[in-house]
Amino acid sequence: MPIGEFDIIKKYFTRLGCGRGVQLGVGDDCALLSVPEGKQLAVSMDTLVAGVHFPKNSDPELIAERALRVNLSDLAAMGAEPLWFTLGLTLPDADPLWLNGFSQGLFNAADEFYCVLVGGDTTHGPLSITIQVHGAIDADHALLRSGANVGDLVLVTGTLGDAAAALAVIQGRLEVGEQGFHYLMQSFYRPKPQLHEGQLLAHIASAAIDISDGLIADLGHICEESLVGAIIDIDRLPLSGLMEKRVEPVQAVMWALSGGDDYQLCFTLPPQNLNKLEILIKQGKINATIVGEIVSGSGVTCLKDGKPVQISASGYNHFKS
Amino acid sequence: MPIGEFDIIKKYFTRLGCGRGVQLGVGDDCALLSVPEGKQLAVSMDTLVAGVHFPKNSDPELIAERALRVNLSDLAAMGAEPLWFTLGLTLPDADPLWLNGFSQGLFNAADEFYCVLVGGDTTHGPLSITIQVHGAIDADHALLRSGANVGDLVLVTGTLGDAAAALAVIQGRLEVGEQGFHYLMQSFYRPKPQLHEGQLLAHIASAAIDISDGLIADLGHICEESLVGAIIDIDRLPLSGLMEKRVEPVQAVMWALSGGDDYQLCFTLPPQNLNKLEILIKQGKINATIVGEIVSGSGVTCLKDGKPVQISASGYNHFKS
Repeated sequence: MPIGEFDIIKKYFTRLGCGRGVQLGVGDDCALLSVPEGKQLAVSMDTLVAGVHFPKNSDPELIAERALRVNLSDLAAMGAEPLWFTLGLTLPDADPLWLNGFSQGLFNAADEFYCVLVGGDTTHGPLSITIQVHGAIDADHALLRSGANVGDLVLVTGTLGDAAAALAVIQGRLEVGEQGFHYLMQSFYRPKPQLHEGQLLAHIASAAIDISDGLIADLGHICEESLVGAIIDIDRLPLSGLMEKRVEPVQAVMWALSGGDDYQLCFTLPPQNLNKLEILIKQGKINATIVGEIVSGSGVTCLKDGKPVQISASGYNHFKS
Repeated sequence: MPIGEFDIIKKYFTRLGCGRGVQLGVGDDCALLSVPEGKQLAVSMDTLVAGVHFPKNSDPELIAERALRVNLSDLAAMGAEPLWFTLGLTLPDADPLWLNGFSQGLFNAADEFYCVLVGGDTTHGPLSITIQVHGAIDADHALLRSGANVGDLVLVTGTLGDAAAALAVIQGRLEVGEQGFHYLMQSFYRPKPQLHEGQLLAHIASAAIDISDGLIADLGHICEESLVGAIIDIDRLPLSGLMEKRVEPVQAVMWALSGGDDYQLCFTLPPQNLNKLEILIKQGKINATIVGEIVSGSGVTCLKDGKPVQISASGYNHFKS
């Protein structure tokens, strides 16, 4: 590399000032941090590898934005409030243009969600980014995957499938016009971690997960950990205006069910808390849609017109019975 | 990969039981952790890349041992006590033999130093390992790089240069016999993080750093952060028996000064605390040697027979004056 590790850290990743609870940030053997009194620490780590999780020639600003937002989404899924993050950055070379863009995107997202960079490591090697986020949460209010009960409603925040549509556009399989392109690229590279929503839901929901692998897969994790089953009514899946206008209906439903990368929350709600949720929805504090119910048994079953349908890579079909 | 991410985590990296303060470990969106009351959290992240930090065909058990030990050394350098770690593992394929060895080495080191795996991420890509360690420390007793004062003594724990000698053996530049080979491989792959030593020093030393880049470079960081200079008496550098017997003296000193990878501590001690340190040494709780002194000015100066010498890649020479 033309410049060394210490210079990269100093030039691109050290900012003056410090965040809440940061006694010592970037630059010593460790960062020293104070967790707010009475709170637990929630931590999550994600690695993004070039050529696997994003195209190698992606805009570095967008890679950084996405990397931090995707990690923050894990805090949202627990109902935690962001505090700090660490960055493990492996670089094939120290390209100043790339580093400028990357650090710009990183600090944009960090500032938007009040999450402070406190340390990390910069090494030479194939491009990859590991981020660990740290959040604070009331000990008794964490949203676990294991809390769902039979009879709970299944809900999702926002709309589903836009990230899969974005991928189709990137790969040349879908044409959506200039405005649609801009909207989908924002959805893909700048997903909005549902942090405020998660913190509100921590007091009324029974379980939650963020939708990274697709609704069926992620709701499946809740079912597995809670020892229950779930049904999804595919007519109730919330779709964006663009999906409704530009994408063929069966394809739109497939992307909403299995597309992944949307980083909305899927959560379960005891029916007696529905009125509390409706108040939050009316106040504009959360956007959520009922899509199904927790049932006894195991696995996720999709219904159309009240009848089970089978989901496959090519679409969905009513079970032959 | 023949088996997926969830299977790898379940099979190789999930253990029953949990550690101190672990409310929720591997398997949900986040781990939930309680920092011991009244303590601060110390965190440090390191990435090791195959072909850069270790040969691609290294024994996976040793890679894992080294990765965790090297990270724990950063906690030692602050005087912190290990609590938890997270693992970001990027793998080209899911070779069961490799994963078995790696997880074995990882848990060996984790158990030896009472540090619990609480989460992480497994991804597909070029082999690399990112570990973040988390430790607890009394808010006022952290050993910073910035605490050294003019007149403080400079000391190091253990002996220096063995890791550089090990690298020379690995690369075929040094021949040390079978017993020496075993000793050096242990030094290189299983460095002992000076955790107890760091925790004791936190109460009497003024600054500390772990020696990863070599004594001159790392003491240089202390000087830079403390706005002081340092002198090292090269006749006082502690060398192992093997280094004294098997390595040519000038080479041995060079490795001790600039070899790196020893993961001993370099620390500064106010002279009035020397008697406290001597008691710890007599009690067998710490092994440390005075190698120099903090002076006004900047940078690290090496002395031989009381006269400054110049250190270069090929050895050291008295300054021409």
